[in-house]
Formats: sequence, C-alpha cells, structure tokens
Amino acid sequence: MARGGSVPGFLLKKKKNMVLVKQWIYEMRPEADVSPANYRYEEVEQDLTPVRGEVVVEGAYWSVDPYMRIQQSSKDTWEAPHPTGEVQGAAVVGRVTCVGEGVTALKVGDWVETYMGWRSAGLRAVADCRLLNADEVSPSTALHVLGMPGRIAYFGLLEAGKPRPGETLVVSGAAGAVGSIVGQIGKLAGLRVIGVVGSDEKARWITEELGFDAAINYRQVSDVESMKQAFAEHAPDGVDIYYDNTGGVTTDAFIESMNLRARIIICGQISQYQSGLEVPNMGPRLLHHFLYKRATMTGVLARDYTARMDEMLRVMGPWVRDGKIKYNETLIGGFETLPEALCGLFTGANTGKMIVKA
Amino acid sequence: MARGGSVPGFLLKKKKNMVLVKQWIYEMRPEADVSPANYRYEEVEQDLTPVRGEVVVEGAYWSVDPYMRIQQSSKDTWEAPHPTGEVQGAAVVGRVTCVGEGVTALKVGDWVETYMGWRSAGLRAVADCRLLNADEVSPSTALHVLGMPGRIAYFGLLEAGKPRPGETLVVSGAAGAVGSIVGQIGKLAGLRVIGVVGSDEKARWITEELGFDAAINYRQVSDVESMKQAFAEHAPDGVDIYYDNTGGVTTDAFIESMNLRARIIICGQISQYQSGLEVPNMGPRLLHHFLYKRATMTGVLARDYTARMDEMLRVMGPWVRDGKIKYNETLIGGFETLPEALCGLFTGANTGKMIVKA
Repeated sequence: MARGGSVPGFLLKKKKNMVLVKQWIYEMRPEADVSPANYRYEEVEQDLTPVRGEVVVEGAYWSVDPYMRIQQSSKDTWEAPHPTGEVQGAAVVGRVTCVGEGVTALKVGDWVETYMGWRSAGLRAVADCRLLNADEVSPSTALHVLGMPGRIAYFGLLEAGKPRPGETLVVSGAAGAVGSIVGQIGKLAGLRVIGVVGSDEKARWITEELGFDAAINYRQVSDVESMKQAFAEHAPDGVDIYYDNTGGVTTDAFIESMNLRARIIICGQISQYQSGLEVPNMGPRLLHHFLYKRATMTGVLARDYTARMDEMLRVMGPWVRDGKIKYNETLIGGFETLPEALCGLFTGANTGKMIVKA
Repeated sequence: MARGGSVPGFLLKKKKNMVLVKQWIYEMRPEADVSPANYRYEEVEQDLTPVRGEVVVEGAYWSVDPYMRIQQSSKDTWEAPHPTGEVQGAAVVGRVTCVGEGVTALKVGDWVETYMGWRSAGLRAVADCRLLNADEVSPSTALHVLGMPGRIAYFGLLEAGKPRPGETLVVSGAAGAVGSIVGQIGKLAGLRVIGVVGSDEKARWITEELGFDAAINYRQVSDVESMKQAFAEHAPDGVDIYYDNTGGVTTDAFIESMNLRARIIICGQISQYQSGLEVPNMGPRLLHHFLYKRATMTGVLARDYTARMDEMLRVMGPWVRDGKIKYNETLIGGFETLPEALCGLFTGANTGKMIVKA
C-alpha cells in the first residue's frame, strides 16, 4: 500500500508525508465549570509517516464524555490529572488512510475506534485500533452502545448490580449514553425500570421509545422528599438497584427508599464534577441506611472491563442489530465544536450519546 | 424440679409463683441525646410460673448497645421503632432458676443468654435461651466477644471485608465491643491494623494490650485532612479495608485515602445516632471516590448471622480461651444504672463492652 492513500479532501494540506493536523489542546484547568476557554485550537503540520505496525487514522467521530471533566480535577482520581498543554484525550472513530509496513490486520478504508484524542488525524499502532464492522451499524456506535459506555452499562448492571427478574431498577442520567443503555438492558433482564432525566422530552424518549416503565424529570422534583414520593409512586414494590450516573438528590432519595439488600452502582457523579471534586459539595449523611438495608455500593469503571470487550459485543452486538437495544446520537459538527460539546454534557444538551462529527 | 428453685435473695419478693420484677420501661422517644429521662423504672409483681417448655431466667448481666438508640428513631430502620411503654429490649445473661414441664435442655443453675430486655427476671421459652459454658470464660462474654458483637465483628470483617494478608485495616470505634474484636481478628488474618479511638488511654489499650499496630485518638485530630495525614503516617502502603462503627470524619478521611478496590464495612454510625437519624447531619459528598477506587461499601447487621452463631463460636471460642482474642468489660452496677450506662456509650465511657451487672 502506497503512502498517501488518504480519503480525498480530508487532510487539509499534504506535502509528501506532512499533514496539517487540527487539534484541541487542553490548556488550562477549570476552577468550576469547564468552558471552551479551557481549550486552545491549533493546526500543526505533522509527519504522519507510519512506521512498521502503524497506521494513519483520520477522525470522523470524536467522543466527549463526562469522565473528561474528572480528569481535570487537580487531584489524582483513577490516574494523575490530564496534563495541560496536551491534546485532549478521547476515543475517536475514523478510517484508516495509510498503513505501514507489516500491517495485515487493517487496510485503507477500514473503520476503527482508537484513543487518539481530539485531533483530526494521527499515527496509531495497530494494537491500539479496534476494527469495526461498519456493515451492520453506524461506526459511531463504537463510541457508545458498542463502545466504552455500552461496556460499563453492561458489566456495571449485570455484574455489580446482580439483577434478579422482578426487581426494580432506578437509573439516573437515564437519557445519557450510559443510562439509556442500562435501562434497556434492565428491561431485557426482567426488571421494572425507572429513569431519572432532566427534561420532559427525555422522559418521553426513554418511556415511549426505549421501553422504560417510568421516568422522573428531576427538574420538576424539588427535594429529596419529593423524589422519594416519585419513587414510591412508580415503584410499588420499592427499589432494589440503583445505577447512578449523577449523584446528588436522586442518590440521597434512593438511599432513603431502598429495599433490603439493595445494590448501588456508582458509575458517574456528574452533578458533582463541575466544582465538587476539589472542595466537595455537602449532602446528608445517610450511611446508617446501609445498616438498615444491608445494602451494597460499588464503584465501577469502564476501563476495568476493557479486556472483556468481546464478551460484551457478543451479546450487545445482536441486541443493537436486532433493535432490542436502541440508541440516540446527538451529533454536533464539526471538529471546532468539541469543547462546546463537552460543556453541553453538563447542561444536559445531549439525548443519548453526544458526538462531534467531522 | 420443684418450682421456686431460685437463687436465694435474688428475687426480691416471692409469694407462691409471684415475683417482684424490676424493669426499665422505654417511655419516651428522645429528640436528640438519649437520657435516663427517656426511661421509667418500675417494680411489678408478675406470675413467673413456667408453662411447658419454659424456664425462669434471673438476669445477672444486662447489655446496653448502640443499636438501642437506632431503634429509638421515629422512622423504620431494620424494623419498626421500639414501642414506647414497653420494657427496653436487650440481651441478658442470667441463670435458670426454675424449669417448666418437659424441659430437658436446661436445668436450674444453668447460665443462658436470652433476649429478655431490661428486666430482673422473666419467663423464657427454652428455644429462646442459649446455654453457656461458664467453665471456660465468664458468662458475660456471651454479651460481647462470644455474642452478638463478636458475631458481627467476625462475619463483618471476614466475609464482607474479604481481607487478604498484608492489607491494612482501619477500625473506627476501635476500643468498643465490636471494634476491639475486629482489630484482633484482623491481626490474626495477617492485616496491619489501625484503630481510631476517643482517648489516649484507649489508644494505649488497643496497641499495648490488643496488638493493634497503631492507634489514632480522633479527639486530637481536628479535621479530615489531619485524619488523612494520620492514616498516611500509620499506613505506609495505604488503607484497604475500613470497618466503620462511627461514621463522620473518620469515614470521610478513609474514603479520600483508600486504595484501589477498598472495602468499607458499615457496622455502625454511632456519631450520627443522637440526632442524625431524624434529620441527617451534613457531610461532604464523596461518592466520586468510589469510581476512582472501584471501592465497595456494604452494610452488615448482626442478626443476619444469627443462624451461624455456632460457626463463629467454633473459631472464636478457642481464640478467647487461649488468649488470642482479649476483651475488656466496663462493668457498671447495678440494675438501676441501665439507662445511664446506655447514655455512656455515646460519650465513650466504655472501654470494651459496657455491661450492667446485677
């Protein structure tokens, strides 16, 4: 394969192996709300000549995810803070435009998912690329239902959540990339599913389109007591499992409502990310309820299940193909909107997965 | 066995089968701190004639336990609130003074443990009495190291805690009836053990007598940051397991310090019981740390392990007999001091198990 087998027009300039790469630099740590001001756009000419075992990937879909804000904490989280002055780390779906010597697993034109960050194109080791089957579903699904968010939805609910048919599941952030999948897996597992969302439109989507049994718009629920009443109204047998993507009042209300031997899965705490990671927000001390109910809370992180991606895809792939699991993408374009798209996650601008498209 | 085989002098008055029974009535729910004013003392003549399968038990040691304050919440906990106007429920160790027809498992003079409440004597079904072996250890141990507190120390640490040798355990309330046992079981399980206590004297006791590796006097630790520093000082490899009897700042500091895949066992939250059960106290929202560390928190309750008492005693009995597990009793006398003794639990008046002696 000759060098320069690029999709025409995508690489803005090309002089031999030199490519003008667009990229977003994470420039400055946010004190509270992340904003586009924390990022710097640049275009740099880079030599994208693949060495042995490498390919060139041109991005088509870039991911924005809530975890990015966690990595902007000044403190260690699951790893050290994201360094400033570097390209924002992110999963990207794109096409192979050029392959290096000895590469047999990928060919020009293949769709791949790779953790390339917010850059328009880049060199990637073949081992760092996941080849996608673009015949059956959009390759963008590799950023959500058939990617990291789907993986943690699947393993978080089915392993940490230990669901039993007939139980009632509450999902917060239920119209988000993870929550919308969790609820549908919950239905397939025989659960009654209540989703907590941030708008009536999202409430309609998860009940009418995704098959959730009930939805609660948290913006219309003023406090913990009202949220508990809403749970009681929608869960006649009480609530057994809580898949938490948000934290805050919904979590408090679940803890005060939960059935004996309830399971709480902490997958996200998005309500706390903008300011609560440095100096925690205050909330009620409710751990005594864990005694009453002999409840269990477990934190889950998608990267722990990376090695089990195939296991998830074997089940979820057919579910998505056959329409048993539905998804939505909030597609924003183009590349220059990436920081805005990230910020939109924290105001609930997305229904389903927020993706930036080339 | 003829009726009236009582230990002379114990039953204050006796007319045929009529006995003057002393008892403490839980009279009024406390708004905040429980005090003797919440109880009413009475002496009532009762007919203690055992029917078939019953015995008469005379109390010798009465238990006071932190859970009693939980049952004084106005809300349901693991069960409905303790009813007012009734004898305070409690475990009691005493002797059989009279046996009814058909009773073969117990004889007059036997030591038993039974949930008879704060009364000087009572009728008990044989099935509700646990026969004690008073030859090897004091029968009062049936109220702590070889009773309910020992049971939850044993199963809570070894099952919910999933300890691995070489890990570091933090125990709060470490000089209490449960905590002092948890730490010693931890040492037998190969753990490094740090106890958090409320006085320098207790700190000396758990390190010099019980073999804890380190002790922290929380009254000399002003805030979460100082507690985290104290952990760091005493736990060079970080902290893996937290057996929580107290809640509050110690718990916050553990969550902010914990190692990957830490386990938190919620056995008690005594710092919250006096007022935090009705209107919760406020504390920092820290659940995002469960993501970072993929930690697990589990509430445990002694009554879940009642059916496995023999399993615990088979291991703990020899440990206590051989001095591998030591204990202390804060013995207060007599029966009339019961409410004061209960209140003392919340000011840390006890080292080891608080017991009221006849």
